[in-house]
Amino acid sequence: MKLKIKNFKWLAGRPVVVLHKDTAKKMNVFQNDRICLRNSHKFYAVVDIFTKLVKVGEIGLSSEVTKVFRKKDGFILDVTVGEMSSATKLIKKKIDGEELNAKELEIIIDQIVRNNLTEAEIAYFASAQKMMGMTLAESINLTKAMVKTGARLNFGRKKVIDKHCIGGVAGNRTTPIVVSICVAIGLTFPKTSSRAITSAAGTADVIETISNVELKLKDLHSIVNKTGGCLAWGGSLRLAPSDDKIIQVERLINLDIESQLLASIISKKIAAGGKYILIDIPYGEGSKIASFSKAKKLGRKFKQIAKSFDIKLNVVYSDGRQPVGDGIGPVLEMYDVLSVLKNEEGAPCDLKTKSLFLASKLLKMAGVKKAKQKALEVLESGEAFDKFKEIINAQNGGKDTFDKKIKNLRLAQFKTIVKAKRSGNIIKISNKKINHLCRILGTPETMGAGVYLERHLGKVKKGDILLRMYSENKNKLEQAKRYFVKEELMKIK
Amino acid sequence: MKLKIKNFKWLAGRPVVVLHKDTAKKMNVFQNDRICLRNSHKFYAVVDIFTKLVKVGEIGLSSEVTKVFRKKDGFILDVTVGEMSSATKLIKKKIDGEELNAKELEIIIDQIVRNNLTEAEIAYFASAQKMMGMTLAESINLTKAMVKTGARLNFGRKKVIDKHCIGGVAGNRTTPIVVSICVAIGLTFPKTSSRAITSAAGTADVIETISNVELKLKDLHSIVNKTGGCLAWGGSLRLAPSDDKIIQVERLINLDIESQLLASIISKKIAAGGKYILIDIPYGEGSKIASFSKAKKLGRKFKQIAKSFDIKLNVVYSDGRQPVGDGIGPVLEMYDVLSVLKNEEGAPCDLKTKSLFLASKLLKMAGVKKAKQKALEVLESGEAFDKFKEIINAQNGGKDTFDKKIKNLRLAQFKTIVKAKRSGNIIKISNKKINHLCRILGTPETMGAGVYLERHLGKVKKGDILLRMYSENKNKLEQAKRYFVKEELMKIK
Repeated sequence: MKLKIKNFKWLAGRPVVVLHKDTAKKMNVFQNDRICLRNSHKFYAVVDIFTKLVKVGEIGLSSEVTKVFRKKDGFILDVTVGEMSSATKLIKKKIDGEELNAKELEIIIDQIVRNNLTEAEIAYFASAQKMMGMTLAESINLTKAMVKTGARLNFGRKKVIDKHCIGGVAGNRTTPIVVSICVAIGLTFPKTSSRAITSAAGTADVIETISNVELKLKDLHSIVNKTGGCLAWGGSLRLAPSDDKIIQVERLINLDIESQLLASIISKKIAAGGKYILIDIPYGEGSKIASFSKAKKLGRKFKQIAKSFDIKLNVVYSDGRQPVGDGIGPVLEMYDVLSVLKNEEGAPCDLKTKSLFLASKLLKMAGVKKAKQKALEVLESGEAFDKFKEIINAQNGGKDTFDKKIKNLRLAQFKTIVKAKRSGNIIKISNKKINHLCRILGTPETMGAGVYLERHLGKVKKGDILLRMYSENKNKLEQAKRYFVKEELMKIK
Repeated sequence: MKLKIKNFKWLAGRPVVVLHKDTAKKMNVFQNDRICLRNSHKFYAVVDIFTKLVKVGEIGLSSEVTKVFRKKDGFILDVTVGEMSSATKLIKKKIDGEELNAKELEIIIDQIVRNNLTEAEIAYFASAQKMMGMTLAESINLTKAMVKTGARLNFGRKKVIDKHCIGGVAGNRTTPIVVSICVAIGLTFPKTSSRAITSAAGTADVIETISNVELKLKDLHSIVNKTGGCLAWGGSLRLAPSDDKIIQVERLINLDIESQLLASIISKKIAAGGKYILIDIPYGEGSKIASFSKAKKLGRKFKQIAKSFDIKLNVVYSDGRQPVGDGIGPVLEMYDVLSVLKNEEGAPCDLKTKSLFLASKLLKMAGVKKAKQKALEVLESGEAFDKFKEIINAQNGGKDTFDKKIKNLRLAQFKTIVKAKRSGNIIKISNKKINHLCRILGTPETMGAGVYLERHLGKVKKGDILLRMYSENKNKLEQAKRYFVKEELMKIK
């Protein structure tokens, strides 16, 4: 069908064309259908139907389409339906059970990055990965395509390290401590982290309680060059940007796709310049991975994919049966991090031990000798804490505002305690349920909300305080208490 | 997060909420994400991000959401993310390989009909059906859910018949002839058809060359009650309306899902009141189903599902190796239909024979004796043609405008012929390629465009005319000729 261009000068976020409802009916296209526009070349766009904006016979173009054709209002385009772009054909191929090669995966990922695939088309790609599985070669090529289509950091010949935890453990805020220790010893650590999706807080949420975390790529680069490290939010950096889109679509139905997870993690670390990468896989009841054998299986896949890249990747398997650290929630976790870095007496042992363990593993990988000893030294001497301050100050614009930021940290105004109703052994603290409890209390939006655990797994006496809860809302506090009791959140036997 | 309502009085077609980009960032939600709104009850809506329309802390509601909460501007809603609706949880369950029961499938279909699932969520459902397959019980329950969630016609104790061809054969416009014959004999035939998706024309496109096809359900009901039949477009009738949505999402990547096809066809026929249903499955090289054994397999599934309903369903397997009829394209096919109904000398034999075959099968199913003989009688006596006129006149508002409509039929203004370059046997005429050729010529948008076949499979002499092509555009005619040659569209050996 021939339609007259009307340029809308409107950034839609992806190539969108607007049709009159009668034009759409005649072409037999619907909202969010994809159509093909032709002039000297072919281009695909998504249909939006707005009867008031265009007349019958007109086609409104968003800026993304205007810039492709660069034609004035009134120019006539040939518009056809029932055709698929090359990327959608390839997604169909994968659904039909065929393996995709490097070039084909790159086309799909490239089209996702260019905003040329709709959420529904990305959902087809995600579900094909999930249900058809991916071969090792596909996983490797997917990772390559994800690196290739995004920004990439380069720190020259510096020893760049990175870590990633696959998550599922409440609290567990090791990252700021590990980064501070390793950077204090002289390694380069351009750490990017995520925000919470279903948990109480992500590392980015925790760091945000005292620092700007939304860095531009150029600023991140110069902060790392200056201080040796950073603790940034990964979301806005366009390191492997296809991943953000795919994750967004996965989240619609809480889909976990192993091949996508592997490619996502490895590609982001490579894009950030990482050469020595440590993956932490917590396992055990109540965490993401139920058993050691499953954790091992996943770990092996990380290693297999990493072999195809110029990086060294190690995996550690950690205890994921209960939260690590005492505080759960952005401010509460920041308090834990600060108390470990300041070597305070009441600092949570488990968090300190795990952080030191991960730091020494990373140091060793990067060739640092006496890694364990050195890690402990820089933590206990306060050098790690100084490095943490330096990084936070750099992220906040270079002025020394650290103490002021710390002073402004506040817990939520309402609190309550829960005591043990009997003596015995705490035999279960579900990470998943603790996270849900914190969501009820208002995390991560309410930074000062959350839970402070007075007890971990082990012995407890009747009347002992089990945990403290914080919220800006009394009703939520009551709701959380009921949830705690109903779900037997800390089971005593 | 607590957000202030701003009612937009805007019908978005599904429940949409508008957030400011900073609110969205803080909640970590993206365009087209689903969020949960709570007041006295929970409700899910899709996020749209428009910074100019709402302020930080506000939530704009489309009319679909306003009518659920019925609160004034400024009222505060609690808004949360990371939660799934019951339908999305069930889609996830199917992706994880579990079977869905009747109640669960009904929840999904109901939510699709209510516009509460996004295209991406429907894509997940479609791909789970495709890749995980559906058990017979699931197919039956899906069909039931699709009937239950839509409108339904009831013609009391009348003998209501219906037919469906699974498609793939160019031309093949038997429906108007079969309906006219069967209704002339006294049966009730509320026929609804589709428009072309990738073919040259759908039955609705062909009938539209002389008649209104977009009937309201109530008008369709009274036309059928009065004349005994109709030839309507099924798209706007809301018979099994979930199907239209699912098909729209399937089309994005040209996905064919057998379980969805089966449920779609059977549910629409049941919703239209059908009691005796005939399914035509063409098979053979160049059609949708490659072999007789595959056609049989599909046919068996139709019968298995139909057993669970109060209907009689039969299947015929027909020759799908070449187009049926001479004309391909809306007006050209109407000419074929008219020439068969008028018993003209040059009427295409194959179309007439197939129509009579299908009509007698249907008549026999409905208990009509000497079905074959009666079908031929009403066709040759002109009674079928009179019935056709009556139906078309009724669809056009009751006035006798039939002859005027026929007189106004026009072929496209530019034409060309293609002659045989050698003598021999035409051994192949691909339906798929003939359809594509017609699309190049401008069908179905250009009603008078298309192809007239002078030859079918069989002997031909050098210099004989093979086919005539019609288009409103000379370039397209040239392009079509090149395509014809390049693809060896009528292969002579």
